[in-house]
Amino acid sequence: MTRFLASAALIALAAFAPAKPLGTQAVIEQSKPSDWRRLAPENTLYMDVNGGTVVIELAPQFAPLHVANIKTLVREGFFDGTTVNRVQENYVTQWGDATEKKSLGTAKPTLPLEAERDAKGLAFVPIKQRDSYAPEVGFVDGFPAARDPKSGKAWMAHCYSALSVGRGESPESGSGAELFTPIGHAPRHLDRNYAPVGRIIQGMELLTALPRGSGQLGFYEQDSQRVAVRRVRLGSDVPAAERLAVEVMRTDTPTFAAFVDARANRDRDGFLIGMGGVDVCNIRVPVRPVAKP
Amino acid sequence: MTRFLASAALIALAAFAPAKPLGTQAVIEQSKPSDWRRLAPENTLYMDVNGGTVVIELAPQFAPLHVANIKTLVREGFFDGTTVNRVQENYVTQWGDATEKKSLGTAKPTLPLEAERDAKGLAFVPIKQRDSYAPEVGFVDGFPAARDPKSGKAWMAHCYSALSVGRGESPESGSGAELFTPIGHAPRHLDRNYAPVGRIIQGMELLTALPRGSGQLGFYEQDSQRVAVRRVRLGSDVPAAERLAVEVMRTDTPTFAAFVDARANRDRDGFLIGMGGVDVCNIRVPVRPVAKP
Repeated sequence: MTRFLASAALIALAAFAPAKPLGTQAVIEQSKPSDWRRLAPENTLYMDVNGGTVVIELAPQFAPLHVANIKTLVREGFFDGTTVNRVQENYVTQWGDATEKKSLGTAKPTLPLEAERDAKGLAFVPIKQRDSYAPEVGFVDGFPAARDPKSGKAWMAHCYSALSVGRGESPESGSGAELFTPIGHAPRHLDRNYAPVGRIIQGMELLTALPRGSGQLGFYEQDSQRVAVRRVRLGSDVPAAERLAVEVMRTDTPTFAAFVDARANRDRDGFLIGMGGVDVCNIRVPVRPVAKP
Repeated sequence: MTRFLASAALIALAAFAPAKPLGTQAVIEQSKPSDWRRLAPENTLYMDVNGGTVVIELAPQFAPLHVANIKTLVREGFFDGTTVNRVQENYVTQWGDATEKKSLGTAKPTLPLEAERDAKGLAFVPIKQRDSYAPEVGFVDGFPAARDPKSGKAWMAHCYSALSVGRGESPESGSGAELFTPIGHAPRHLDRNYAPVGRIIQGMELLTALPRGSGQLGFYEQDSQRVAVRRVRLGSDVPAAERLAVEVMRTDTPTFAAFVDARANRDRDGFLIGMGGVDVCNIRVPVRPVAKP
């Protein structure tokens, strides 16, 4: 009888013991269709470069003026036939018009810096993770971001594969005609200093596996070293059948919170110990293929 | 007279106002000779690969058994004629014997995991920076590291350009015959799970600007894709005149503390705002050329 009672108590305990949290793969497998979203064609860029296509999601919620200007540049063919001009080891790959003489057409030559914005009105979903650079980090519609309750400002983080705007010394000298992406450890000291305008969803390897430039700041010194940016198109100008058929995990759901938790506590699949924390730049938002539209 | 007093007060204030902290370049320029150290030849590796030489500093203070085993492998020529077998985008480049059949000579085939160690006895110099993964971060003899006061353990961080040991599912299955280095955003979830044995001081671009592998985990699928590791030598076996003539900034000095502070507060040279913090993996310990020995 005591034995039976003991067993009953054990069963009761087991029923209330917290289940081991899911791993990243299990979170994805158990997700609902509503945990995923499609890319909006009007905010997607297709850049043909280095024998493949880089697919970019634009972030007008962070840099409306720059995104509008970039769309103008794209639609007027500014980027077609430009080049990758700079590949700096553990820092950035940068592209645009190497001559700096090509006409920007009807696009604006300079814009106010959009490196941060009012946090109010932004769908910022915090994650409970420590960060070396900001009091608070999280995601906004899939973009890794930071927020400062004191200043009331929010900004996109310069994580690996962010798309950001090159500029001169003057903060107001950028236009979106010169773009770069971090290819090494996140250069977060660029945050609040440079204006991120989106992130690369697919094709980073086309921009990272390039020879490093031997000039100052990794700029190429000879024309022959520059890989061509053959063509850049806005998703809504790309025939539907040619668009990237993927869906991206939403970052404002309990499923994504579970995914972040799983990234912070990897204790399976060859891992012995979960670290109990994760850098916002080390949370790669899941992307999965879907049937063509 | 009141005017004179006011001026005197202002001068006094100015004398006590904190000077604007130095920038990274100024810290280096104002450093003393004793703020720098040479590489110890007996803990340096020279790896000829991809048309150049990767220079590695070994860390016996973190992984004595692995470092000793790697030195045996190197001196017996194990790595000569092996290959780069895996390049996974935003993750790692890995090299060793693709056939997994080459004899390890007198080296041990497996070793206990040396992913962390007792913090006691380690020259850990903390930096006052928040970290997403560990309660405390800092440097040990130039190696970025973390420490947990609760467990009393310390470990090297898997930052960009760390050298770490590949292994199978079993934690005790590594030997140092298969090595990898992070080539993207620091995969710190490897910390305490894999055994870092050093860091790459020069030549990272020889391992990062390689085509990504198309197989699972970025492994190459065809022999022809594998770049040869032509030769690996221990520094003490390299003629003095051929050794890398550099010095590395010491990480246990007030000068290095000032350097970290400058990295955390970059507000010059094109930067408008210092972020007031820096990721331990984004502090690249300065290296500078010196005259040949």
